[in-house]
Amino acid sequence: MPSKQIPDIVVGRLPVYLRALSHLAAEGIQVTSSHELGKRLGISAAQIRKDLSHFGEFGKQGTGYNVGYLRDQLKRILKVDREWPVVLIGVGDLGRALAHYGGFVDRGFRIVALFDNDSNKVGQRIGELEIMSMETLADVVRERSIQVAMIAVPAAHAQKVAEQCMAAGIKAILNYAPITLSLPDGTLVQHIDPVTHLQRMTHYL
Amino acid sequence: MPSKQIPDIVVGRLPVYLRALSHLAAEGIQVTSSHELGKRLGISAAQIRKDLSHFGEFGKQGTGYNVGYLRDQLKRILKVDREWPVVLIGVGDLGRALAHYGGFVDRGFRIVALFDNDSNKVGQRIGELEIMSMETLADVVRERSIQVAMIAVPAAHAQKVAEQCMAAGIKAILNYAPITLSLPDGTLVQHIDPVTHLQRMTHYL
Repeated sequence: MPSKQIPDIVVGRLPVYLRALSHLAAEGIQVTSSHELGKRLGISAAQIRKDLSHFGEFGKQGTGYNVGYLRDQLKRILKVDREWPVVLIGVGDLGRALAHYGGFVDRGFRIVALFDNDSNKVGQRIGELEIMSMETLADVVRERSIQVAMIAVPAAHAQKVAEQCMAAGIKAILNYAPITLSLPDGTLVQHIDPVTHLQRMTHYL
Repeated sequence: MPSKQIPDIVVGRLPVYLRALSHLAAEGIQVTSSHELGKRLGISAAQIRKDLSHFGEFGKQGTGYNVGYLRDQLKRILKVDREWPVVLIGVGDLGRALAHYGGFVDRGFRIVALFDNDSNKVGQRIGELEIMSMETLADVVRERSIQVAMIAVPAAHAQKVAEQCMAAGIKAILNYAPITLSLPDGTLVQHIDPVTHLQRMTHYL
């Protein structure tokens, strides 16, 4: 297994490959090809072969990829062959939807704590979790060695919340607030803002 | 204004620039620079200048960009100097959160119709909108000349729903279902799946 640094753009495509392989496995398909995968994903077969070649030899010329094996290798590379505990900060409409979402657990993530700065929400339960005060964030993150946070607070609060996360020891932030966070170089942060995706398409309409 | 084709990766960054410029304008800042914007966004100043140069001359050497002017030009380029009507399909937890979200309207989009295939939900109201049967989707899209859809249905239904959208005349789809849609080449489609973003970060942890 090569240990060289993998280009980030390649790392960014691996979760999409993993998702497709998991769907194939669920359909009972045991062997696939870069061509078949590419057709499903709208990515060229050559791109897929090149991306996967960074991680070693997964398929033999002409015989295709073993779906279960490649899926498991991608899980290992992405480190989702384990379960990451996640804190969710901000329990408005979106936060509630994320707290209820059933699609995290079998893909490597479990929301284990909910936080909100609204004292009216603190103490309420969503499923098995109780909404906690932001004042307890740092203790919870440290005690449970949590590295991943999802932020679903209004834009005006997101920067401060992100800084609180970093100070508590969070290493990776998925930010749903519609603002680009200013964080130290090298911080792992991803942004989800539906409007940027919509605006990217309307340019072409 | 040059009319040449803009690389899609550049188009993809413009909504992020627009968002930052709108925040600057809201803060009362009238002039900015590629350096200042880059610092906010974690993008190099040279990249920003190069991206914007595709669309003409927005700033003068040494004097920076006029925030309001550049924002308005980006709105025009992205065609969000108008309001796009949007249909939302799938009114589960996430769909409800999207229906309640206040951040679409001032950025160019308004959800004007909600659809679900659950007859128990049809007829329920969310704010001013009534959830409608999927059977009426095509008529609503055609009558109101709607081009943009958001899909928030379970993965197992997303492909069929996307095809129904295309058949009805939808031109751009924002898909929240955790599956890559198979649609004809050239279809405008964007995917939002929080797990792919999380997995992209855990690789580095």
